[in-house]
Order: sequence, then structure tokens, then C-alpha cells
Amino acid sequence: MLDILKDACIRVRESVKDMIGMKEAGEALGRGAGGDISRKIDIVAENVAINTFKEAGLRCTVIAEEAGEVRLGDDDGYIILDAIDGTTNAIRGFPFTCCSIAYSSGYRFDIKYSAIIDLINGDMYYSSKNNGAYLNGKRINVKASSYIIGINLSGASNRVIDMVKPILNKSNHLRHLGANALELCFFANGLMDAYIDLRGKLRVTDLAAAYLIVNEAGGIIINEDGSMLDASLSINERLSFIAAANRSILEEIADDLNIRLKI
Amino acid sequence: MLDILKDACIRVRESVKDMIGMKEAGEALGRGAGGDISRKIDIVAENVAINTFKEAGLRCTVIAEEAGEVRLGDDDGYIILDAIDGTTNAIRGFPFTCCSIAYSSGYRFDIKYSAIIDLINGDMYYSSKNNGAYLNGKRINVKASSYIIGINLSGASNRVIDMVKPILNKSNHLRHLGANALELCFFANGLMDAYIDLRGKLRVTDLAAAYLIVNEAGGIIINEDGSMLDASLSINERLSFIAAANRSILEEIADDLNIRLKI
Repeated sequence: MLDILKDACIRVRESVKDMIGMKEAGEALGRGAGGDISRKIDIVAENVAINTFKEAGLRCTVIAEEAGEVRLGDDDGYIILDAIDGTTNAIRGFPFTCCSIAYSSGYRFDIKYSAIIDLINGDMYYSSKNNGAYLNGKRINVKASSYIIGINLSGASNRVIDMVKPILNKSNHLRHLGANALELCFFANGLMDAYIDLRGKLRVTDLAAAYLIVNEAGGIIINEDGSMLDASLSINERLSFIAAANRSILEEIADDLNIRLKI
Repeated sequence: MLDILKDACIRVRESVKDMIGMKEAGEALGRGAGGDISRKIDIVAENVAINTFKEAGLRCTVIAEEAGEVRLGDDDGYIILDAIDGTTNAIRGFPFTCCSIAYSSGYRFDIKYSAIIDLINGDMYYSSKNNGAYLNGKRINVKASSYIIGINLSGASNRVIDMVKPILNKSNHLRHLGANALELCFFANGLMDAYIDLRGKLRVTDLAAAYLIVNEAGGIIINEDGSMLDASLSINERLSFIAAANRSILEEIADDLNIRLKI
């Protein structure tokens, strides 16, 4: 299964890499199942990925940002697909965008395999449950070091902004690249101490693949209510989360945000 | 002069590229003229750049983040050098860091030549006054498009956070990479609609080279008081600025921030 997910990532990159930063990539083609406007680059990439699953003979259900739930056959299990994460970046040519694919054995975050490819440089992050996380064949691990904090405040409400003020005051190294799954891969690879998104806007397609890679790299990832991250795979779910490189950073952030940890 | 600045950029990249993401890069070596702790990678890079200027026979004054003001001879004119912009990124291996060098004819922002190199992929941004801005030989221009807004809130005070709330509420595409000069090059290359840093923490070394590239790419860059950006080249100056791709975006941002434009 992991090989199929990786193959789909590679084929997606091949199919869209000449479209990145080009006007045609942004052509509007209706509205996807996730609620956003579907862009040509999203549709092309998603079709390539789903065709890869079909050619490989998969018969599970695909949950995709544009197409919604697509049953390939009668098998159990779900593939969660965000064929282009960071669509705005991809269209503009801002060099952070990825293809993110996970396989879950159930209709929750029971993620067993993940593959995420950086569409610009081809870096492949992947993981299978209980077997660690990898970048291009090399084991990766989270790291706590210079208090680099990834934080997504795009379109944040004043409630969220006020809540994270202590983090903004404190961290001299905030980061936000605009492709959530790839940012979580950077985090899993030890480049950030934590990553926070409390806007309640993310979908399961934005998070499922990175969730396993973060966990297998040793990171901790919780909901806004302080419990371990979990959710149904419904395309209508909206998620918030905090990912931290270790327990002490998680406790410090939870304390700053007035969140009581339940783990 | 532009060729000398570009040559220094290339030599700096050559000297530090194997150090990026390595522990030795972060070795603390006292405190620089700008007030930050000097890291080994900063010192190595700055020495390489200054030696390039000396070998080229330059006799002007260098204003450098680590060494402060260094007189090479009796000539007028100033080279403003940030040999490693994004030091924290460079040490951690977070792939956004650059070398930024400007030449000014006077002790203010009379910038005549600039060169900025992306230390990861070698992209070279450069400009000479009244001759446009370039990336690897290709003319670049600012662009207004999907309302991607770069904003630096690292260690921001509550006053600054409250001030920018309307921008955070409104833009669904905030970005921050942690290397100010390189982010302004992305902006100059049309990848963001605006870039905002109102923390009052930037030094002239962070901004001088990018200032010319942004102007030559058609961008507008103002101080927090609504006037055109200008400052002395003193290493003790602390700057805030707003860069926008065109007048209408600048007016919208100024309006959101309650800044009265004086231009």
C-alpha cells in the first residue's frame, strides 16, 4: 500500500510540475466537495492520483478534497487524498506545495500508511505505522531546539489571535508557509519545535497523512480540547491542533493557551 | 560594483553551504555589532564577503551585522552587509536563508546596487538603480493577485498584534519564512501582494539590499508613519515597514492599520 501511495505522489508531481506558477493552474472549475473553488491544478492532480489507485487494483474508498467520497470497490479502508496542498502557492509559484495521501483502516484517524511529496524539489516523506518516519529513505525525528514555532493565522478570528498572543510575544521565530501538510513534514524532520493551527478550518484531507508522519517521528499532536488528535474522516469535519516535539514544549504551549492537557 | 556584490554572494554561499543545518554553524562566538549573538556561520560568511571587497580593491566603508562599521579606505560610499540573513533557519536547516549586500552612495538609503543570494538553491536576485530588478538574469516585477500577505510577527508586542488584526482576519494566505531579505525578494518576484513588519526590530542590514530590489521591481515601501522608507545607515537604527505591490493594495493596508499615507 505504501508503494502505491508513493507512486501516486510521484505521478502527481510529474503531471503538475510544469503547471506550477502558471496562469492555467488557477483556472476555476466549479466547487469541490471540501467547499473551496476547484482549480485546474487540483483537478488534474486528483484525477492522476485516483487513476493510480484504480490501476493498482485498489477497491477501498477514496476521500478526496475535490471529488469527495469515491468508492473504488467493496473493500474496507480509506485513502485520504489532498492532491495539491497549498493550491494558492502552487498557482502563484510560491515554492511550497505538496501532494498528501494517507491510508486509514477505519473511518477515523486509524492511519496506517502516509506519503507526502514536496512538489517543488521532489522530497518524499513517508511512514507506515510503528515503523518510523522517513525522508527520501532517511529516518527523521522531531527536534526541540531554537523555539521555531509554525503557526497558521490565515484568516484567523480575533478570538484565536487573542488566544495565541503569548506565543507570538514569546517566539522570535514564527513560521508559516501555506501548505499545512508540508509544514508538518518540516516539523517532523526537526526543523520546528511546534506547529499550531487553532482556526478550526482544516479538513481531514489537510491533516491525515501528516498526522502519521508526525507521530512516527516522535511528535505529539493534540486537539484544541487537550486530548489526542482524532476525528472522523468526514469531509465536513473541521480541525484544530497543536503539534509539539516533546511533552515539555507541549505543556508550555498548553499553559500559554490556557488548554488543560488530557493526555 | 554590482559584479563585486554578486561575487561576494557566490563566495559566501560556497563557504557556508555545507554548514547549513549542522551543529557547528550555531557555535556562539560573542556578540555582534547589531546586538545579536554571533554564530560561527555568521562570522565565516561575513569574513568571506569582506575579504572579497578587499581583494576587489574597494576602499569604502562596510556596515556589517557582526563587525559593525569597517573602513576599507578613504572612499565615500557604504556597503551594507548581512552575510547570513535567517541565521536561525541556516543553523536549523530550515531551507530559507540568504546573503544580502547593498551599496549606498551616502549614509542613508541611497542604494545604488544590490545582490541577494538564496543560500539553499543559489537563486541570485540583483538590481542597479533605475535598471530594474532581476532573478538569475530575468527581469522580475511585483504582482497583485491572490492576496498573499507576508507578515512578520516573531516576538511581536500586543500593540503590534492588535494593530494588524484586520490583516490577519482578512488574508487567507499569510506567510512568514524567517529571512526578511529573501521574503522581500519573493515579494519583488510577484509571489506576494504585500509584506509587513511593524515590530520596530529590523536593522538596516536586514533591509538595505531588498529595498532597492523591491523598488526596481515596481513595489512601494513605506515607513510606519506613512512616508517613503528612509533611514540612516547606523547599525543602531530599528525599522518598521510596509511593502505593497501597488498603490491600491497599499491604501487598503494603510486603511486597515489606521496609517495616514504621506506619499
